[in-house]
Amino acid sequence: MPFDPDTLKYDGNGLLPCIAQEEATGEVLMLAWMNRESIRATLDSGRVTYWSRSRGALWAKGETSGHVQELVDLRIDCDRDCLLALVRQHGPACHTNRRSCFYTALRGGAEVELMTPES
Amino acid sequence: MPFDPDTLKYDGNGLLPCIAQEEATGEVLMLAWMNRESIRATLDSGRVTYWSRSRGALWAKGETSGHVQELVDLRIDCDRDCLLALVRQHGPACHTNRRSCFYTALRGGAEVELMTPES
Repeated sequence: MPFDPDTLKYDGNGLLPCIAQEEATGEVLMLAWMNRESIRATLDSGRVTYWSRSRGALWAKGETSGHVQELVDLRIDCDRDCLLALVRQHGPACHTNRRSCFYTALRGGAEVELMTPES
Repeated sequence: MPFDPDTLKYDGNGLLPCIAQEEATGEVLMLAWMNRESIRATLDSGRVTYWSRSRGALWAKGETSGHVQELVDLRIDCDRDCLLALVRQHGPACHTNRRSCFYTALRGGAEVELMTPES
């Protein structure tokens, strides 16, 4: 059936979470939020576009940093309330300049950082 | 520093999203929600335990189906408002009996299913 963003299930703020995963390596890069408008912008442009909850505006990932996410595939989960974007990430995905936002792990009950910022 | 679930950032309902990823293959399996109690239960038991929003109760993944998720590693994102659980998934992760919940993709603007239920 043709895809219609209106058929997805959004939360009370009209948002749903979208996971970004590097297509080539399988690394999970980040999670951010999308609304209907950002899903349409992502599909129309081929570049992942989120909704910035802090700014209350569309957030074309990398529009200022150049660290864009080329969309390779968009997956919908069984409950239709979460998306998985397979992407080609240009530069680091994280605003800390790390490859992924998930750079903190637990070792022996303590937090450790697994990645350093890229230069 | 020692990990304290109270230092994470929860939403207005005391929840944050947790992505489950198969450690061996990198496949993203599902996204569900955790609160402080479920995070502690996950770390204490070594099996991923979510918070069921529909039931309003702890949800030890696989407690009825046997499709448990052994925790291999728990990652925290830069904003401390999202978790990534690297797991060893026993059986299918999805309640539809598919390996992953993200089995629907877009091809030429239409939805297609990439996986069939396991028997």
